Amino acid sequence: MKADFQTWMGACGDRIETALARLLPPAELAPTRLHEAMRYAALGGGKRVRPMLVYAAGEACGATPAADMALDGAAAAVEFIHVYSLVHDDMPCMDDDALRRGRPTVHVQYDEACALLVGDALQTLAFDVLSQLPLAPALTVQAMQVLSQASGSAGMAGGQAIDLMNVGQRLSLAELEGMHRLKTGALLRASAALGGIVTAATSEQRRALDAYTHAVGLAFQVVDDILDVTADSGQLGKTAGKDAAADKPTYVSHLGLDEARSLAESLRQQAHAALAPFNGAARRLAELADFIVLRDR
Amino acid sequence: MKADFQTWMGACGDRIETALARLLPPAELAPTRLHEAMRYAALGGGKRVRPMLVYAAGEACGATPAADMALDGAAAAVEFIHVYSLVHDDMPCMDDDALRRGRPTVHVQYDEACALLVGDALQTLAFDVLSQLPLAPALTVQAMQVLSQASGSAGMAGGQAIDLMNVGQRLSLAELEGMHRLKTGALLRASAALGGIVTAATSEQRRALDAYTHAVGLAFQVVDDILDVTADSGQLGKTAGKDAAADKPTYVSHLGLDEARSLAESLRQQAHAALAPFNGAARRLAELADFIVLRDR
Repeated sequence: MKADFQTWMGACGDRIETALARLLPPAELAPTRLHEAMRYAALGGGKRVRPMLVYAAGEACGATPAADMALDGAAAAVEFIHVYSLVHDDMPCMDDDALRRGRPTVHVQYDEACALLVGDALQTLAFDVLSQLPLAPALTVQAMQVLSQASGSAGMAGGQAIDLMNVGQRLSLAELEGMHRLKTGALLRASAALGGIVTAATSEQRRALDAYTHAVGLAFQVVDDILDVTADSGQLGKTAGKDAAADKPTYVSHLGLDEARSLAESLRQQAHAALAPFNGAARRLAELADFIVLRDR
Repeated sequence: MKADFQTWMGACGDRIETALARLLPPAELAPTRLHEAMRYAALGGGKRVRPMLVYAAGEACGATPAADMALDGAAAAVEFIHVYSLVHDDMPCMDDDALRRGRPTVHVQYDEACALLVGDALQTLAFDVLSQLPLAPALTVQAMQVLSQASGSAGMAGGQAIDLMNVGQRLSLAELEGMHRLKTGALLRASAALGGIVTAATSEQRRALDAYTHAVGLAFQVVDDILDVTADSGQLGKTAGKDAAADKPTYVSHLGLDEARSLAESLRQQAHAALAPFNGAARRLAELADFIVLRDR
């Protein structure tokens, strides 16, 4: 990874952390236990891939400093949705996981009822933040449509439902892909789309972003499946080997490790190709595709 | 209850049922189990008080037939938020209730993981529906702000968090009121406010709606507390006597039954008084206040 990209990622991480901390309710504000737990869930960890996609897509579409606040809001909104889904996923009735981002999960650190409300309130906060973006109302409405459709039963929540039903099933590769396009792909796609909406991108730019995240979204999941079998829990900050233990269908169980790695590499190249219309302005998106495929955690 | 008002309520009930059925994902659409369970949770029951508030507020503000679709969308959105909160509230880690609207709760009929996702996806659907209202974008953005603020940690979810922390505590009357203003009051207030936003109400009309729901929202909870001790489960369609059994602070445990009834009556009169600026156009809102206070389930 180039030093210059590593610096950019660090700056993005600081930027989104500051935005999340500002947009979350203060821990001193009643109900304090809920607000503390919301901050515990959302701050101080995570790869922040979705916010980075928002920022990098904004940059590719020629964001000016005037768009900074709106990009921060959009990046925070999508991260709040992601974090809410992790908090609920980790609960005993779902994946029953005790470790996340190297720390106890919310229901372990607090309790189950609190984790349920934390997830609920983080989802609401995402839409609250979007509804207050410093943007033309027509763009705000587009942002709300994109994020809600990517998150609900036609997107992320629907993908989780399919995933739950499929434990122990042998899926075809097409079914596995369909599930992941919803479960993780939809929100990654929405992230880049939000960067485009906030910067009032052209239709051509929006189509290019969509083609890019079509490839990157799937690559992200293929690499997650690879890391689940090749990395250890300390490295991942979450429990490794869970999918195999739960007999969940994955790209690795389906294709084997080598073929899964070739697929990830081919998707990385597709992502690069999709960025041609940006004529070089999409450097960070290209580097992000590399990072997503070549990461080790 | 006047026959004419009863007819209006029946028409509202049919109208919202039709709107909900149209806006929910079809049960045949994948993931079918999630979509079936979302429809199970949202259709075929409930008093539909929040949708009725949306419609009655719209009528008070002079809604024309052109606003019908937008009123239906706003009414459905607020009901989706209400239903999602019931589904999550009924889960074992919260109130652990097996009966709702006279039927098994979602986690009993399906399972806990499904109930979690149903609640999550219904919340998202509320914002999805709002984002597609046939309205000027600036009004849509206002609607999104009102609903998200009423639902999150500064509203309904915050009230639930306070409620959870207070089991077994002796709250002052002011603390009890503060909790209910968030837990149930905020969403009732948002319902009438949405009726006003959709019909582009004047500031004076919006202030009057707010004063009305300030009184009605609290009355609704006081009467709920009364019914919890005076009605039986068959009548309520949910488990009666739960609050007393869980040693939860209520208006009845605090004030006694007679004084709780006087409070409800005084709030009913406040609600009527708040409607003066509508010069008679708010007949349905006045009747709704009577219904909320005088209901027996």
